[in-house]
Amino acid sequence: MNETLRTYYLSKADENLPPIYSTVITPSVEPAELGRGDTLTVDLGNHYVGYLTFRLWYVDQYIDAPVKLAIRFAETRQELEDDYNDYRGRLCQSWLQEEVVHVDFPGEYRMPRRYAARYVQVTVLHTPKRLSLSNFSFAAVSSARMSDLAPADLLDPELAAIDRVAVNTLKNCMQRVFEDGPKRDRRLWIGDLRLEALADYYTFRNTALVKRCLYLFAASERNEYGLMPGFAYENPVFASGRWYLIDYCLMYVCTLCDLYRHTGDAETFRDLYPVCKSMLDVLHDHKDEKGLITTRCGDVFVDWCPGLMKGSALEGIYLYTLGEWCDTLESLGYPEAVLYRERLEKGRIAACRYLYDEQKNACVNERDQYQYSVHTAAWMVLGGVVRGEEAKRILSDAIGSADSVKPFTPYMHHYTVDALIRVGLMNEAEAYIRKIWGGMIKRGADTFFEVYAPDDPDFSPYGDRKINSMCHAWSCTATYFIRKYGMGAPSLTDYR
Amino acid sequence: MNETLRTYYLSKADENLPPIYSTVITPSVEPAELGRGDTLTVDLGNHYVGYLTFRLWYVDQYIDAPVKLAIRFAETRQELEDDYNDYRGRLCQSWLQEEVVHVDFPGEYRMPRRYAARYVQVTVLHTPKRLSLSNFSFAAVSSARMSDLAPADLLDPELAAIDRVAVNTLKNCMQRVFEDGPKRDRRLWIGDLRLEALADYYTFRNTALVKRCLYLFAASERNEYGLMPGFAYENPVFASGRWYLIDYCLMYVCTLCDLYRHTGDAETFRDLYPVCKSMLDVLHDHKDEKGLITTRCGDVFVDWCPGLMKGSALEGIYLYTLGEWCDTLESLGYPEAVLYRERLEKGRIAACRYLYDEQKNACVNERDQYQYSVHTAAWMVLGGVVRGEEAKRILSDAIGSADSVKPFTPYMHHYTVDALIRVGLMNEAEAYIRKIWGGMIKRGADTFFEVYAPDDPDFSPYGDRKINSMCHAWSCTATYFIRKYGMGAPSLTDYR
Repeated sequence: MNETLRTYYLSKADENLPPIYSTVITPSVEPAELGRGDTLTVDLGNHYVGYLTFRLWYVDQYIDAPVKLAIRFAETRQELEDDYNDYRGRLCQSWLQEEVVHVDFPGEYRMPRRYAARYVQVTVLHTPKRLSLSNFSFAAVSSARMSDLAPADLLDPELAAIDRVAVNTLKNCMQRVFEDGPKRDRRLWIGDLRLEALADYYTFRNTALVKRCLYLFAASERNEYGLMPGFAYENPVFASGRWYLIDYCLMYVCTLCDLYRHTGDAETFRDLYPVCKSMLDVLHDHKDEKGLITTRCGDVFVDWCPGLMKGSALEGIYLYTLGEWCDTLESLGYPEAVLYRERLEKGRIAACRYLYDEQKNACVNERDQYQYSVHTAAWMVLGGVVRGEEAKRILSDAIGSADSVKPFTPYMHHYTVDALIRVGLMNEAEAYIRKIWGGMIKRGADTFFEVYAPDDPDFSPYGDRKINSMCHAWSCTATYFIRKYGMGAPSLTDYR
Repeated sequence: MNETLRTYYLSKADENLPPIYSTVITPSVEPAELGRGDTLTVDLGNHYVGYLTFRLWYVDQYIDAPVKLAIRFAETRQELEDDYNDYRGRLCQSWLQEEVVHVDFPGEYRMPRRYAARYVQVTVLHTPKRLSLSNFSFAAVSSARMSDLAPADLLDPELAAIDRVAVNTLKNCMQRVFEDGPKRDRRLWIGDLRLEALADYYTFRNTALVKRCLYLFAASERNEYGLMPGFAYENPVFASGRWYLIDYCLMYVCTLCDLYRHTGDAETFRDLYPVCKSMLDVLHDHKDEKGLITTRCGDVFVDWCPGLMKGSALEGIYLYTLGEWCDTLESLGYPEAVLYRERLEKGRIAACRYLYDEQKNACVNERDQYQYSVHTAAWMVLGGVVRGEEAKRILSDAIGSADSVKPFTPYMHHYTVDALIRVGLMNEAEAYIRKIWGGMIKRGADTFFEVYAPDDPDFSPYGDRKINSMCHAWSCTATYFIRKYGMGAPSLTDYR
């Protein structure tokens, strides 16, 4: 990419850097007197992201040596009990939120790093004298401001709780960018961005942040085929990720279309149109002889399910994206709409011919390899490959079957709900939300989790539950569905 | 003490709070690329006290997780090799200068705590990608400014080296107060203060700092007898220590007399005269029936030698202090001088009668318990109990004898040298300095140590050498002797 263009994209991203609002949380904790080996647990009352301050003072004698403390920040109560010494996950264990610090002088102590936590546990490793801990405060930071939150008049207590926790999840992930998780990764991923942006339009409406993230990805380094990376870093300098995911590139296109739909911002769309167009054209150019999308240009994510076959889901994602793209181009009067509408129709025909098994009455995956999954069904529906009553049946069967592969992440749960709504199964969509997001609430969630498979609550894509992120951006969209479709509202007369 | 008076003393201490000068040291270290488990050692080129900054950057891929580093600050090369896990000392191990830190983003990293170090060793505990470390800089802080250092024209290379290291020791201990050691304790002790102040008059002449420390102790809480504590804290608030040492109270008096002698500051003397007078009178009132000083009012330090008997040394310290006190009062024309001069003379007679064993031709300790020590000899000399050729013989014999207890700390080495000079053994004093302070230089000292017994180099008063302070205030006075008496100067014609 030409450097002038990259500089322009980065300057647009900078223009849209949001202010970070800080709210000081002061948990009610009695001043505690502690000696060596003692532990104090502070409950912040909710999950927050920010900076801890507390006062360490002496009890009867001045503390005449540095005090050595272990301080653990836990997103859930379970994390307080975990033994970090037996961590066996694949991700770097430096994400585990525990510090060992020396406090030189009695007084106020501010921890310089940002943490994501509901609980703070302080253990006194070494102190020469008894000490007291008090005045805990937590400066909770976010680029979302609760006073900007659109009101939601929810009478149903379960949906109200789900909405509240979803909004908290979104708020805590909204920082200098839409982060994926404030505990771990703390970076911009396209898959998360799209869902956060959708939820944002119905809650905080911080659309500058959406624009910022779109421009950041526009500035990223493309792979040899011209695809953008699935993630990027922006602090302290912009840096491109090195993992190229076809479905995430498509979700970038969707995110831009969503922005136009929700804000009418034709200027940003025009600005980033070439970025989207070139990736769509590259994927088109690398279709196979049957007219199906291939994985020649990059990897595919879809979900974290072990062993998931992703070919048909990818086809569905491509067609879904083309649909969003065509709608937007047509709405803006772009003449290129005709070309993409034609590609979309041809793509649907090819998908129907090659990825739909009439005998098995279901969609096949991976070109002739058969794996029955909710993922394929949902994306075939969203991609418009199957429609009407047939679509309703295929999707319901896949969700209801004991044999199908089920989603593991709220990211894929989102698209499952979206597909249910698409086929008109609004009650089932609401029931699904109650089962998944309500299920997390029953497990004590203050924020929604990165991974949630009701039958496998300890599942981790990384080999150790302890490294899972328990406040994860892509889990925030329950609020989008509840608010967009008026679920749980006082007068539920229709679904728009 | 009346609170108005305490407030006044603390306000005078605040008035004399010195500026802290910062000098940035940039060690020449090649940028290093490190992976997990790798170590980098940075040599600052000298011992400094201050704040470390370095740059952590990525090599070929952005570092996408916090980097966990262990960073050790070592005053000597030996400390780099020590295993801190087997620490067995009595002092709190939180003084050991090693941190485990998480660096969230590539960039410049400033460590918030102050350390005392010549070497910095960074070990990479966890990193997801290779990283580079560069741009090490160390902001060395002190309230002494090298540009204020009085010149010393030393031709003798050993004495020049001793002077340089002594000045470095003093400089690194001069912070918001005269600290005892910048690695450990980091606080105001009277014994250190007196020696630092003496060295300061011949080097940096930061007399405001001396005044500040005298006023801080004046504000301290007295014990039931009216003695001030041997140490105090001043950060973040003033706090009194809880150990009452009679010899340190006496050294407070000496420090005030020294200030007047070296600066002519009669106002400060007048201000603090009542503080000194009351302690001297309390000690006088608690003498025993023989007219000897007792330990009814507090403990005694003298030196860290295990098993040292301190009674006669304490008597010598008391008489020495009375001598300094009388000289000052007489010089200022205080009528009370007569009273104290009388006490001094009577005290010397009593000491001579009860603490000097003519048969053994030496001074006895602890009222009839006999222990042969350099400590007793030196303090009997300095207290004026023995004089002339007899004093010369007693002191030389004690230093030369295989059977005598020898000093373990440069604090006591100082008073030994002072006693040698007092009896006119200037060459022996210089030889003693070369042996002790020169001996530390032969062991690679950049600063002088808290404890130095040539025959027991691993001795620690705290049960583990690793906790010893290797830059210790009370070891800085070699520069005082060298400069005051013109040792090693080009034209050494006389000793003043």
